[in-house]
Amino acid sequence: MERRGKLIVIGGAVDKGSFTEKNDEKEIEKNFNFFERGILRRIITESEFAINSRIEVITTASQIPEEVGNEYMKAFTYLGALNVGVLGIKTREEANSIDTIQRIENAHIVVFTGGDQLRLTSILGGTAFHRKILQKYSTEPVVIAGTSAGAAACSNHMIYQGSATEAMLKGEVKITSGLGLINNVIIDTHFVHRGRIGRLFQAVVGNPMVLGVGLGEDTGLLIIGGSKMEAIGSGLVILVDGRFINDTNLTEIELGEPISIDHLVVHVMAKGSLYDLDDHKLTVHRLEKTLLLKKMQTD
Amino acid sequence: MERRGKLIVIGGAVDKGSFTEKNDEKEIEKNFNFFERGILRRIITESEFAINSRIEVITTASQIPEEVGNEYMKAFTYLGALNVGVLGIKTREEANSIDTIQRIENAHIVVFTGGDQLRLTSILGGTAFHRKILQKYSTEPVVIAGTSAGAAACSNHMIYQGSATEAMLKGEVKITSGLGLINNVIIDTHFVHRGRIGRLFQAVVGNPMVLGVGLGEDTGLLIIGGSKMEAIGSGLVILVDGRFINDTNLTEIELGEPISIDHLVVHVMAKGSLYDLDDHKLTVHRLEKTLLLKKMQTD
Repeated sequence: MERRGKLIVIGGAVDKGSFTEKNDEKEIEKNFNFFERGILRRIITESEFAINSRIEVITTASQIPEEVGNEYMKAFTYLGALNVGVLGIKTREEANSIDTIQRIENAHIVVFTGGDQLRLTSILGGTAFHRKILQKYSTEPVVIAGTSAGAAACSNHMIYQGSATEAMLKGEVKITSGLGLINNVIIDTHFVHRGRIGRLFQAVVGNPMVLGVGLGEDTGLLIIGGSKMEAIGSGLVILVDGRFINDTNLTEIELGEPISIDHLVVHVMAKGSLYDLDDHKLTVHRLEKTLLLKKMQTD
Repeated sequence: MERRGKLIVIGGAVDKGSFTEKNDEKEIEKNFNFFERGILRRIITESEFAINSRIEVITTASQIPEEVGNEYMKAFTYLGALNVGVLGIKTREEANSIDTIQRIENAHIVVFTGGDQLRLTSILGGTAFHRKILQKYSTEPVVIAGTSAGAAACSNHMIYQGSATEAMLKGEVKITSGLGLINNVIIDTHFVHRGRIGRLFQAVVGNPMVLGVGLGEDTGLLIIGGSKMEAIGSGLVILVDGRFINDTNLTEIELGEPISIDHLVVHVMAKGSLYDLDDHKLTVHRLEKTLLLKKMQTD
């Protein structure tokens, strides 16, 4: 599958369940921090129409979609965006409606907010909206972005639950199918503050074909062509590669028992570092990141 | 250096700064959980004199040494130990005293409690007590155990501070010299509940010769001959091996900037799994662990 679109997945804001999940006035300053650091701005600048892009904010993941949508509107407007809409799909019926499809048809940027990723997959999965997003991502230079739950839902495999402290007990990490914008990857978010590396370890040991991607707070990945990934934001992206696992007790232990794993490969990516999903090669940021990305794209 | 002694390092109890740091009555049940699960019992049974062993509890790390010492007395007594003493060394002068050395001379088990590992190294480092411990560990079948700070201080390199969430910013993880009971290792504790894997990543990238060892709560390692390690307790031990790092930006970034690392090898050890520091080989627990350890010792 060709991917002409760009994908931006973001680990969520520091100290919050998901970006704009809490709409207190005192939270706004923190949110400004978040996008001032460049991640939300990057979503706009990566679109060829920049501030003139039609932006659709999908609030389906959230239980408080009006507040979340409103805050994204404010944030994008603050950053100069001139044409922002909120598409508050709450049911599969709405996700199949002609009006919804028309709005996605006209969008240049589609943003999935935080909330509960299982709402994204259970409400949107397999609908006309979902098919339209996949088709658009494949054939048009659209920018698709997701933060927190919106990021977790982008991969074809999706963690939707699992305690960080119990994450290495067999069966504790709950996985289902994501929206399939990126393959052979499983994305976890709020990775640093919630100490979630064990969740990725369990996800990866179950099928080492899948690369575990842990996104820190205020941190994301820009993914071009479905495989060239660049770390963006102030924090870290952790990659867990299980292809070289020598041994594990996974299939021999009962549910709830601790998992042993011999040989996981882990990478740590700060801003500007690049990873190529096709050849599994990491390039540590060293030059100006724009130079590096250009180099990578022409390689 | 020969090592006739055994070393047991323990990651600390769940939900507490260090085992017995809090002495509330309601905490006691939790502590019972901790040793009932076998780790404190294991300290006793690994000694050739078992419950008849002379046990010395070193409370130097703690700011509340009387309470901590008292609770260890109760715990070991509950487990049947018949000859337990608390050696509350608070100064370097006490650590150099003839009485102290005599008590270590007579001990079969020496236990370092939790607290602040920097107290252990700054008060005990280079004293007659420290030299006696090293000599005894080398030449006698003594059992030396440390929990939490007491575990962190056992390795020759020691993390004494560093926020979990900032752990991958250059310079955030503070390292000094430990007591040197085990070489080419750096031990971190309370590993799972405090989300500390970034601390080990930073410790290891600075010098990949050193193996990072992260001990979960209620979890430890029994180390025989200075190199054969067996995971004990209910949780997990994480090993971080940096020998295969391909690239990092560590020397090119400023203090406070995020570190990128290409290719860390990570192992996850549940109870019974073995790791050999000499040949860097992990054996996932599969047989009865006693059979495995016997097999490993005769290999």
